[in-house]
Amino acid sequence: MNREQLIKEIFDKKSFLCVGLDIDLNKIPKHLLDEDDPIFVFNKAIIDATAPYCVSYKPNLAFYECYGIKGMIAFEKTIHYLKEHYPHHFIIADAKRGDIGNTSRMYAKTFFEEYDLDALTVAPYMGEDSVKPFLEYEGKWVILLALTSNKGSQDFQLFTSDNGQRLFERVLSKSQEWGNTDNLMYVVGATQGAMFRDIRNIAPDHFLLVPGVGAQGGSLQEVCKYGMTADCGLLVNSSRGIIYAGQHEDFAEKAADSAKELQQQMAIELSRLQ
Amino acid sequence: MNREQLIKEIFDKKSFLCVGLDIDLNKIPKHLLDEDDPIFVFNKAIIDATAPYCVSYKPNLAFYECYGIKGMIAFEKTIHYLKEHYPHHFIIADAKRGDIGNTSRMYAKTFFEEYDLDALTVAPYMGEDSVKPFLEYEGKWVILLALTSNKGSQDFQLFTSDNGQRLFERVLSKSQEWGNTDNLMYVVGATQGAMFRDIRNIAPDHFLLVPGVGAQGGSLQEVCKYGMTADCGLLVNSSRGIIYAGQHEDFAEKAADSAKELQQQMAIELSRLQ
Repeated sequence: MNREQLIKEIFDKKSFLCVGLDIDLNKIPKHLLDEDDPIFVFNKAIIDATAPYCVSYKPNLAFYECYGIKGMIAFEKTIHYLKEHYPHHFIIADAKRGDIGNTSRMYAKTFFEEYDLDALTVAPYMGEDSVKPFLEYEGKWVILLALTSNKGSQDFQLFTSDNGQRLFERVLSKSQEWGNTDNLMYVVGATQGAMFRDIRNIAPDHFLLVPGVGAQGGSLQEVCKYGMTADCGLLVNSSRGIIYAGQHEDFAEKAADSAKELQQQMAIELSRLQ
Repeated sequence: MNREQLIKEIFDKKSFLCVGLDIDLNKIPKHLLDEDDPIFVFNKAIIDATAPYCVSYKPNLAFYECYGIKGMIAFEKTIHYLKEHYPHHFIIADAKRGDIGNTSRMYAKTFFEEYDLDALTVAPYMGEDSVKPFLEYEGKWVILLALTSNKGSQDFQLFTSDNGQRLFERVLSKSQEWGNTDNLMYVVGATQGAMFRDIRNIAPDHFLLVPGVGAQGGSLQEVCKYGMTADCGLLVNSSRGIIYAGQHEDFAEKAADSAKELQQQMAIELSRLQ
């Protein structure tokens, strides 16, 4: 999906919500555990219930890999289901990959050819040749970690150079030599609040993928205040707050309610742009 | 496998060689492609041929994931084969994972519980809570990216703070607050040459996993000159130079020859310690 299509989806649906499909068999409703493939059954119900309120889905690979081959089969079925039934939703593999060029090329093949997903999260530590192979696919996106939502983001991302530049700022500026606003986004945690201003100084037009609203404590209003652009420029992710909103037979309805509530707040934020 | 056991294996076998199992169906001998599971058949032959000359194997997950479910089945079979037939070899999953604590815990479960591997490579960008969940497993190891072998290592890893500390040095010192020489190693590329001196200033006793000898151009002698400790302190990886040494029916013998050649050079280096 290209930038224009993504922006159109956002304004048509009055939503920039991304639903994180972070499966945990200890957290899904107990009655689903009798199913042959409880992960897929859960995902399918969550997707059907939340699709009207979001523009994107983001499965985090860790939560599938940890169930071995079964988990990866459930991941593939989820992707196929999304691509068949919701072809206008932007699908992000949250995998935080990144390796030497030779190896990153294999990851790019996996996520952009085999699975044909729209975007992949990538870790920047290994630099240019670890990122570029992902940028060579027309209509596909790299979402590079910049300033993440967790406490550990302070350990290295705020590391400051002699001229006052912080590492996340170096990542933002350096990576713009490799990609552009049509194939490169950044991960910025919702918990970073006013730091979005500093991000927008360096990346005024790039889309930002923003996790950390909800369970991690970030505020949607603050993210929008400092991070929103004329094109919206945001994909705000919520995982646990939506998919585990209910624990019983009506879990999908509860997820829909939770997604709708966020979408309605997003509609208000988007209305300020007009 | 704990540190003492690893050191014993190294001195018993006069080898600190790690063989990288980076499978590429375009590079394995053509006659294997008719097999039901060519990846596993290839790996099994390579392992049986090279086991006397190495102390470690390192499959890079990218090269299995890119073949989807089939690739992951071959990965699992390879791991089971290694654990059953070569229980004294140190098995590293080269996956360069790292995510918020909640998610890193899932990755740790996958690699240390499900697959019961000895070590996992981890990317440091997200800081403490992305690394610590991997350090909670007795006898298991984190191998943290420090100064990698690729050209892109210059983009961020050499980023220098106002007090002259470079990012990779910050990673080395900060991470020693989380782990120790019994559960933490670092990735340092063989192409980094004399930089090993700087690494040893900060991490004098930690084991280093050193890729980049062979196809990437690093020198074993230089790595040993600047990086070796009284306990050896090195695991030097070669992938393509060994596993693709031959292209015909005798590919496993050629791989053994190539591994043996490196092992003999390593025996000379180890003999200098006595």
